[in-house]
Formats: sequence, structure tokens, C-alpha cells
Amino acid sequence: MTLTDPDRLYPAEPRQRDLARALYQSVADLPIISPHGHCDPRWFAENDRFPDPAALFVTPDHYVFRMLVSQGVTLPDLGIARTDGGPVEGDPRVIWRRFAENYHLFRGTPSAMWMDHSLEHVFGVTDILGPQTADAIYDQIEAQLATDAFRPRALFERFNIEALATTEGALDDLAWHKMTQDSGWTGRVITTYRPDAVVDPDFEGFADNLVALGQMTGEDTHTWTGYLAAHRARRAVFRDHGATATDHGHPSAVTANLATAEVEALFAKIIAGTFTTHEAEMFRGQMLTEMAKMSLDDGMTMQIHAGCVRNHSAQVFAEFGRDKGFDIPGRTDFVGALQPLLDAVGMEPDLTIILFTLDETTYARELAPLAGAYPALTLGPPWWFFDSYEGIKRFREAVTETCGFYNTAGFNDDTRAFCSIPARHDVSRRSDSAYLAGLVTTGRLREADAFEVSQDLAYTLAKQAYGL
Amino acid sequence: MTLTDPDRLYPAEPRQRDLARALYQSVADLPIISPHGHCDPRWFAENDRFPDPAALFVTPDHYVFRMLVSQGVTLPDLGIARTDGGPVEGDPRVIWRRFAENYHLFRGTPSAMWMDHSLEHVFGVTDILGPQTADAIYDQIEAQLATDAFRPRALFERFNIEALATTEGALDDLAWHKMTQDSGWTGRVITTYRPDAVVDPDFEGFADNLVALGQMTGEDTHTWTGYLAAHRARRAVFRDHGATATDHGHPSAVTANLATAEVEALFAKIIAGTFTTHEAEMFRGQMLTEMAKMSLDDGMTMQIHAGCVRNHSAQVFAEFGRDKGFDIPGRTDFVGALQPLLDAVGMEPDLTIILFTLDETTYARELAPLAGAYPALTLGPPWWFFDSYEGIKRFREAVTETCGFYNTAGFNDDTRAFCSIPARHDVSRRSDSAYLAGLVTTGRLREADAFEVSQDLAYTLAKQAYGL
Amino acid sequence: MTLTDPDRLYPAEPRQRDLARALYQSVADLPIISPHGHCDPRWFAENDRFPDPAALFVTPDHYVFRMLVSQGVTLPDLGIARTDGGPVEGDPRVIWRRFAENYHLFRGTPSAMWMDHSLEHVFGVTDILGPQTADAIYDQIEAQLATDAFRPRALFERFNIEALATTEGALDDLAWHKMTQDSGWTGRVITTYRPDAVVDPDFEGFADNLVALGQMTGEDTHTWTGYLAAHRARRAVFRDHGATATDHGHPSAVTANLATAEVEALFAKIIAGTFTTHEAEMFRGQMLTEMAKMSLDDGMTMQIHAGCVRNHSAQVFAEFGRDKGFDIPGRTDFVGALQPLLDAVGMEPDLTIILFTLDETTYARELAPLAGAYPALTLGPPWWFFDSYEGIKRFREAVTETCGFYNTAGFNDDTRAFCSIPARHDVSRRSDSAYLAGLVTTGRLREADAFEVSQDLAYTLAKQAYGL
Repeated sequence: MTLTDPDRLYPAEPRQRDLARALYQSVADLPIISPHGHCDPRWFAENDRFPDPAALFVTPDHYVFRMLVSQGVTLPDLGIARTDGGPVEGDPRVIWRRFAENYHLFRGTPSAMWMDHSLEHVFGVTDILGPQTADAIYDQIEAQLATDAFRPRALFERFNIEALATTEGALDDLAWHKMTQDSGWTGRVITTYRPDAVVDPDFEGFADNLVALGQMTGEDTHTWTGYLAAHRARRAVFRDHGATATDHGHPSAVTANLATAEVEALFAKIIAGTFTTHEAEMFRGQMLTEMAKMSLDDGMTMQIHAGCVRNHSAQVFAEFGRDKGFDIPGRTDFVGALQPLLDAVGMEPDLTIILFTLDETTYARELAPLAGAYPALTLGPPWWFFDSYEGIKRFREAVTETCGFYNTAGFNDDTRAFCSIPARHDVSRRSDSAYLAGLVTTGRLREADAFEVSQDLAYTLAKQAYGL
Repeated sequence: MTLTDPDRLYPAEPRQRDLARALYQSVADLPIISPHGHCDPRWFAENDRFPDPAALFVTPDHYVFRMLVSQGVTLPDLGIARTDGGPVEGDPRVIWRRFAENYHLFRGTPSAMWMDHSLEHVFGVTDILGPQTADAIYDQIEAQLATDAFRPRALFERFNIEALATTEGALDDLAWHKMTQDSGWTGRVITTYRPDAVVDPDFEGFADNLVALGQMTGEDTHTWTGYLAAHRARRAVFRDHGATATDHGHPSAVTANLATAEVEALFAKIIAGTFTTHEAEMFRGQMLTEMAKMSLDDGMTMQIHAGCVRNHSAQVFAEFGRDKGFDIPGRTDFVGALQPLLDAVGMEPDLTIILFTLDETTYARELAPLAGAYPALTLGPPWWFFDSYEGIKRFREAVTETCGFYNTAGFNDDTRAFCSIPARHDVSRRSDSAYLAGLVTTGRLREADAFEVSQDLAYTLAKQAYGL
Repeated sequence: MTLTDPDRLYPAEPRQRDLARALYQSVADLPIISPHGHCDPRWFAENDRFPDPAALFVTPDHYVFRMLVSQGVTLPDLGIARTDGGPVEGDPRVIWRRFAENYHLFRGTPSAMWMDHSLEHVFGVTDILGPQTADAIYDQIEAQLATDAFRPRALFERFNIEALATTEGALDDLAWHKMTQDSGWTGRVITTYRPDAVVDPDFEGFADNLVALGQMTGEDTHTWTGYLAAHRARRAVFRDHGATATDHGHPSAVTANLATAEVEALFAKIIAGTFTTHEAEMFRGQMLTEMAKMSLDDGMTMQIHAGCVRNHSAQVFAEFGRDKGFDIPGRTDFVGALQPLLDAVGMEPDLTIILFTLDETTYARELAPLAGAYPALTLGPPWWFFDSYEGIKRFREAVTETCGFYNTAGFNDDTRAFCSIPARHDVSRRSDSAYLAGLVTTGRLREADAFEVSQDLAYTLAKQAYGL
């Protein structure tokens, strides 16, 4: 048997299904452009084998363990490290069994589809994961992980990845990227400049980070001019390590464009640590505009991931730290928030700002109208909770009528689960094919155009948006 | 002819339709679990006949009379009592005719589907309700209401109800429930603890209600300790009358978890009647957390129905009172609002808090991410305006990908229209079958799993969530 | 070949498609009721030929040029006049070629569907617009525009328009309407009273406008009584020029119903120009209630278009002025905002207030519950960005279950692009037919009723709502 339906995600009506299949098949073998994600660059630098099935599929994937937690499994039971170093489950087979016993919880979720896809298409598993099959599947995966064909670089090539961007902080020494570049391996793994830790006054260790930034760049990061110069220097270093883009994870989409004297006064408060909540927000907002202006100079694409309420559970954060599945979407305003930045640079045709949201109500009301007017704006694909069949469907249905296809930026997998990359791009290509087939069969798009658009969505738009 | 299409609510595409029908048929004969609603417990205690067709279908159902009012029929024309006791239409046949003359207004609404289902499946009516058929259908219903087979207990049994929960205020003496329990009848009619009138400082008569609560329990409800003890006492009495759950109808989802000294100071202001709007909100929020903590002790499931703007028309409220169809959904924030309660008890696996909303934008953005992480949280079914085919479809499409099926609580009919209970559960079972058939035919769920999930949604999850 | 699919917008499933086609065909030849829009009354008064294809299709249509701008074409390249009179492209053929070269940007948008419909059904074009065909199609259109059959009145008759309302400011002399009325031509072109410029204290030139209003009416518009009398006088003049409705474009849906003394004090501040932002909002809100009360007297239908953030780009506004595609939807609250007005007049069965929104989240949460209760409220069709297949689908799916069909007001094309009128009504009729076919085939509406509703949505409801 197969774990995945060969016709999955196509519409049920036969004429639509046939067209969706044809559209999908026309893009199924295109290389993967993965311009934004959170893979570990060390994998490709060292090319060591992945440790075990649990470490590959469960422990790093907050999509997976949050669901188990929601039904009463605890994070230590799943081997998630405690911040105090206290004991957690250490046997990967036990963790795997707990996952398998609860696999029914994922029914109807994209996690199940990605998992089944990875099991079948990466590891050749043909049995359904569950309590009875857990051990055999564990052994089957483990045996393959021990072979060279399942090392990171081999999988990268097998996955047909043309370019993969990771995301590093401004203070990262990019040593893994350098090691990969120097290794002679031809896989294109590039970095992305993510300066949150030196831009957000509320970030843990912000003051120390500024000092470190000064040391790395030789700039006086306690003057506004030196601070901006340090950013320019780090951006240049990141570009030397392949970066074509920056990324900004802000709690809101607020931007600012203050006069120089105002900024300098604000920066002095930030440096002094005497800022209010509002001033921190203003500073982050000002820095988005500064980054956009630097992008005008150095050509880097700018990504804004706005509106996530991080670490919602104080208890989970205290005991286990960040990225433990307790990040919740917040309401996000873009119309007022982006106005200062857009007044400064929104009409620039050579600037590319890609917007991401976790608030789907903004798709049709705010994002598509903005992207359908301002030359600098482009819409990123559905993010995080919405990187799924229904999420992609809602996105396309909400934005296409107002901003078309050519104000969108193709697909990002945005994952830290390496084996899910082909699965996620597959879902995206199938979901878009289903959407396009619906347009054609209802007379809203010509069939020949649909095949062109299909290529654009699966491949071309991402390359263009990220300058790859 | 039949008033209802045997294949109603199934998808149109034949393969999906066949599977939806099979899924529905596998659950169609399961008993009804009705764990939340507003039936009158007196019906089952006295088992008197229902007075007349208008009193059964029109006068108690604000879904029905609000639509007639929106097109210019007045509430007195429909026999709705005035608060000043002034004259209203008293002839049920005249009221019925007015309803029948305007029945076209309900085209495309769930009210029409429930009504047609009740007419056909409860009363055997085969003609379409309208001006020409109004009298004959009235006579047909009236004749049957006069028979023993149409008394409340007989209908309860015929409807195949396994358990039905009504909702009573904290000060209710539960006499009707006691009478039913003592009667020897085996039908399971239980109560639910709804303490709004003694929890919400803005409730009419709040001060008097506290006095009454003290008298009922022998506690000093003007001290914080005594007040909490009184709640514990009433919860115990409700449990003695079958209650497995509490219910909380708050204007927002705001919660609080103040230190004891702060609570006592706040309570003193509440008692003194010197509180601000914000303090009233804080007090309601604190009481949600207190109720959750009591649920941890006594095992009662906690329901939160948040975000309804009650009595929107001051004129209608003044002339006719509460529950007259002028309650309008409000925007509701859950992410920030629930944080204090969740920090206190959100990680407790043995606690069940069921969340209801009238703000569908929160499904995917807030509720599913929260329920897909916190063990204590479960999502209630679509509430009120959204208890319908489209409402259920939007709910499943929005939440399943993030929190799956097993963080949802099955179906509630939440009705005060007794004859609509089978109709509403039928709509729910059919709508879920349609959704599941869509998942299977698009490769998102295995067919065998769909049949399991179907049983869970129609029966098991509600039993589990309410401890029935 | 044809540019448009004869079965466009019908569902794909054959049984649904056949029924949708039958429903559409039953209304396809009904006259067009166009009760709200922005056609230029001068067209019908003078009946001159349209200047050229670019002036017909590109320059006046912000739906079209905004999309080109979003991809880097500039407004001057498209012949959009600068406010400083600076040079812009003056050759309509060059503008047309730029449009044709970028026509792929509109794939999947309603603009493409309207355009293809106009090209094929108005001008007999059978080639797809693009760089290769641009000149030939330009010539084909131009040749026809030179004939009498393509003058405004001839097209009006050919489009089968029964009534068309334009929109004029309170200070308009209505000379074009008078000229049309006096011409002996029988086409029904009427005006609509849009008093924003004399109601909104933030409107450019408000103080001067009040003076002009006084001069036109002979009333002292600097007293509250005289100001209201001036409105009454202008409404009467508009009614003499055919108006059956007023229209109010407000930044929010805020209403107020202040005591007379309070209003007079507020009005004094407004007149003195010493008002705050909040006071301006209150005054606009008060005027909505005043207008509703006048509608009770003179029977005019009242339209409220609330929640558009106008002129989002300061740069575009400064260089090119209003209506240049940079208007963005804002979040809009109706529940609290409308309460003062509804408390005053909401229960009046003879008043018709039609609500429009650009915030789709309010459809199911706010608008349908309000319109399904208050006799005075009716819902307008999807507005602007949402006047499309998906927009209409979302609207019907969100509101019908709560307020049915008979609390909605049929269709408005709301366009300044004359040739798109038949295309837009065609989209509306097809989209509603598709929706109705879906209801019938899923057992939610009887087929005979669907044919009745179809007539109502395509024709009757608009006539009734606007008293035409």
C-alpha cells in the first residue's frame, strides 16, 4: 500500500481533477527553491548522519510535540530539554513510541500529510504509523540513517533543492556556511540576515548584543551613525555568505520614519535602557524603515514576519525556553502600521519587501490592497499555522482577485524539519494546482495561462522575489 | 413529497456524496448527547402537553421571530409578552399564520431546515408551510400535541436522547430536576451550574443575589472566603442533580489571577457597589479562574461562552426584556484575555475548559493554536448564529489543521426549541460527514479513520468532554 | 474563439452546473437596475462619443492602473494627470500598449473578466489582449467608438439599463441631469445625494462649502437649524432630479444621537473650526442620524459606505490627487458604532438603510445579525475589492444563514467604467446562480424557490431597496 494518495489535494470533480493533475505534473520535477527556513547550517557543513528517528522527526518539530502536549503528554516525556538541565526521556525509541501511540491526533492535519510523505517517499515506509508498527518503522528509518545516502548533503541533492536559505542572527559568525562554501560541495546553502537580537530593545541580552556587534564590526554601536554602519557591515558579510535577503520577526508591523534628531534622541534612550514600551516599539519600527533603506542600497530582499505572540505560556517558557509550540498568532494591523515605511520607500520599484502574517483577516482587507498598489510590496506565502491545503486555499481565494499572482512571492517552507521540505513543496504545488484548475474550469483563467502561472508559483516567483 | 432532501448537506460530487452518505448512515442512529442547552426542566418534570403549535415553534424561538421582526412584523403581533403587561396577540392560530405568510424569509437559513425537519420527522407534515397550508398544518400539529405520544418525555425517548443538560442559575432551587429524578422516569435530564447572576457585578439584582446565595448556603457571601465556599456548596448541590459542567456567559473572555490581598480588596469594592467598569471586568475574570480551580477539585467541565453583546436595542429590551433576538456578536480576544487563567491552570491535563465564540476570526488565529497547545483547553462547536452547515464547515476548515479533531468537544444543540434537537444533531452529523468525505476524497484522511472520527464527532467526544 | 467561457462561474459538478445555467438563463435578459455608481452624468446629457480606448478603459479605472503601478509602471506613463500640471503620457495608443503588455498581471482577477466581457460583448473582439494584438484591438475599438451606436445613450439602451443612478455632491448644480431630463430622451438617469463635503468637517474646503450651501439654499448654514434646513432643501432638489437615495462615505460607521443642546454646542465648534478629531467624528456620526431622520420624512433610501482609508500614500495623493488606487480598507466596527442611530430609528419599518463594508469579517459577526433583527437595516452587495466571484460567494455564505436573502439589497455595480456595467451585473447574476444551485443540490433550498430568489437578487430587491 501507499501512505499517500497519488491524487491527494486535487479537487474531487473529475474534470477539475484531471486538470489539477496535469498542472501538478508540469511542475512536479522542478527544483525546489527554499528561500526562507530554519534548517541548521551545521548539517551541510559537517555532513554527519542524523542521530535517530526521534531526533529527526519529533524533538525539533514544535508542530508535532505541541499536539501531543495538548492531549496530556509532557514535554520531558518527549525528550525536550529542560532549561534547568533536569531529567527528560533519553531513549529515542521510547519517544518514538509515544509519538506513534498518539499519531491519530494528527488526523486531518498537514503534519500527518508531511509525515506520511516523508515516511513513504524518503524512507520507503509502507505501513501506517501506530502502536503496532512503531518499532519496525523506527528500525527501518534508523537503518537508512546509518547509510551515506541519508546524510544531509545526499538528501539535499535527492530532494532536488536548487537553493536553500537558512536564517542566522546578526552576531552569528557564519562559520558553518563558510565551511560548506569552502568544502567544494556544490549545493547552494545560503544565509539570511536576521538582526532581531540587535534591533529589538526587548530582546534578551540586547545591551550585550550591541557591544558584541561593535566588536565584530569595529563600529561604535552606541552612536546612531556607528550603529547603522555596523548593520551595513554585517549585511555585507552576510551577502558574502550568499545572503540575498534579510528577515525581521517583529511583534507587530509598526514602522516609523522619524527625523534624524528624533531618532538620535530615541536611540540614546534605547542605549541607556530607559525606554518605555512605546519607545521600544517605535525603535523597532524605525529600524524596519532603516533596513528598507539599506535594502535600496544593497539590493537585499526584506522579509517582515509580523504579529506572533511568542512564549504564551510563562510556565513552558520558564521550564523549556523558546520555540516550544506555545507561540500564538496575534491580531495584526498593516494599514496604519506600514504607512511610515511606505511613505518613505513604498513607491520604489526596485525594492522588494515580502510581508507575512498570522492574521488571515488581513489578506483581503489589508495585504492584497496594499500589495496591489505599492510597487515595493509583495505577499509571502501562508505562514506557519497556515502552510497547509486550507491555508493556501484561503490565501489564494482572498488575495488573487485584488493583487493577482504577480504580487505574491511563491512558496517558502520555513521549516526546521529537513525531511518535510519536499513534502511541503509538494503540498504547495498541489494546492496551487487545485486552485488554478478551479479557476480554469469556472472560466476565470485560460488553460494555457494556468500552465504558465503554475510554473511561476512553483519556481519562478520565489527566485525573482529573493533574487536567486 | 418530502420536505427534506434525504441527501441534504452531502457534497454534490457523486463519489464524495456516496462516502458522505455512508459516513452519516454509520452515525445516524447513535443516541443524542445534548450536553448544553436551554430546554425547560419543567417539561420533563410535569410532562404536560405542549400548549399549541405557536408556543412550540414561534414564541420561544428568537431565531424565528427576529427574522420576522427584521421585515416589519412586530413582536406583539407574534404574541411576545410586553414587560408592562400590555396587550399582545393571544390567538396562536393568528401567530402561526403570520409565521407561515413570512416563511419565505427563511429560505437558505438553518431555521428553515430545522423547521422542515421537525414538521416532517416529528409531525409527519408533507406540505410546504405557507399561507395556503398554514391552517391545515396547524390542525395537524395541534391534533398530535393532544396525544400522549407528543408529551415531553415521550418525545425525549423518541428523539433517542441519552442525556440532556439544561442550564440553571446558581440560585435555582432545582425543584423540577428533583421532581424528574424522583419520578422514576429513566430519562437522563441533568442541570448545569450557571452562576452569572452571582458572579457578574453588572447583572440586574447582583447585590440581592449575593444575599440570596448566602441564605441558600448558610455562608457569609460578603467575605471572599464565604463567597467562594458558597459557590462550592452550590456546585455540590448541582452535582447532586446530575450536573457535570458549569457554564459562564461573559461579555468578554477576560480572565484574571490576582494575589489574595488584591482579590479581597477588589471583592470589597464589588460588595460595596463602588466598582468601576474595569473592576467589574476584573472580578468576572477572576471568577473564571476561581471556577477553573474549583473544577480541578470537583471535576466539573467548565464552559465559557464569551463575547455576546446582549440586548443591543435599548427599546426592545425596555419593552420586551431579554432574549428577544437582539443579541449581537462582539469581537473577542482570547490570546491576551485567557493568559492569566492559562498561566494558572492551562497545563492541567485533568481539567476540561470548553471555549465558545461568536467571532469566527478567532478560530484559526487564536482558538485552534491555543487548544492545540494547552492540555486544559477544548473547542466547543460553532455557537448560535454559526450552528449551521456553513458555520460548521468554516469551523472545521479553520481549526482542524492546527488542533485536529481531538481538541474539539463534539456537538451541542444549545437550543430552547425542543423539537429542533433531532434536526440540529442531524445537521451536525451530516455536515461533519460532508467535511470528512471531502478530506478522504482529497487524500487528507484515510477512509477507515474517517469512520472512527465520525463516531467520535457524533457521540464520543461530547460524552468525554462533559464526563457523561 | 470567444474571450469568455459561456459557462463561466458555474460550479464544475455537472448537476450543479446545469442548474446554475438554468437559473442564470432565467435572469440573463432582465433589465439592469444600477442604483449606485459613479458614471459621469455629462455622458448622457451631451451624448458625445467616448474619446478613445484608453480613456474608456484605462485612465478612469483605478482597478486597472493600480495593478500596473504595483508592478512598477508609473501613473504618468498611463496618462494620469498630475496635480501640478506636469507632463504625462498623452498618446492613448501608447497607454493602451502599456496596458496590453501587462495584461497578464490581471490573470485571475475580476478586472480581467470585466475587460474580456466588454471587449467581446461590447466591441466584438475575439483575440486575447496582449502585446501582439494591442494595436489591432485598439483600432477595432476606436472605429466603433466613432459610430453613433457607441455613443453613451445608445450603449445605455443596448445594455438594457432600466435605471442608472449617478452620485453628486450636495453642491452640484445637477445641470447635466437637468439637460438629460429636458432632452426628451427616455433613459432613466438619476442622481444621488452625497453630502460628504458639507457634512465632514475634515473634508477639504469644508468651511467654504458651508458658505456655498447657504448661498444655494438661502438658509443660514451657520446655525444648526439653518444648516439642517439647507440639507432638506438640497434633498428636495435632488429628488426633483430623480434621486431616490442618499449616500454617505464615512471613514467609520460611528453614529451619534446627541441632545439638541449638545449638538448645537458641537456645531458651534465645527463652524468655528476649533474641533478635535473626536468632535469631527461625533459630528459626522450625528449627521448620519440626522440624515436617517430626514429619510423618514422624505422617503429617501440611505446608503452608508463606511471604513475606507482614503489616499493611503501621501506621495500619490500630493502628486495625483484622489481616487488613484491607493484607498485601502480599514477595520470597521458596526455593533457599537451604529447603536445610537439604531436606538433612534432602527425599528422603523418604513426606513431603508443600506450598509456597505470593506471589512468582510463583519459580514457574519455584525452585519447579518444586525440586519436580521432591525427592520430599518438592509445589507448592500459586496463593495469594491469584493465585487467579484469570490467576494460574492463569501458574502452569501456568511450572511444568508443569519439574515436570509430578503435583508439584502440586490446588486450595485458602483463603477465609473461604463462598459463594465453589463459585465459586472453578469458576474453578479452568475455568481448568485452558482450559489443558489449549490443550495438546491445540497438540499438547503427548493428548486422552485431558487428561481424566485434568482429574480429577486437580479432585479426585484434592488428596485425595492431604492424605491425605483
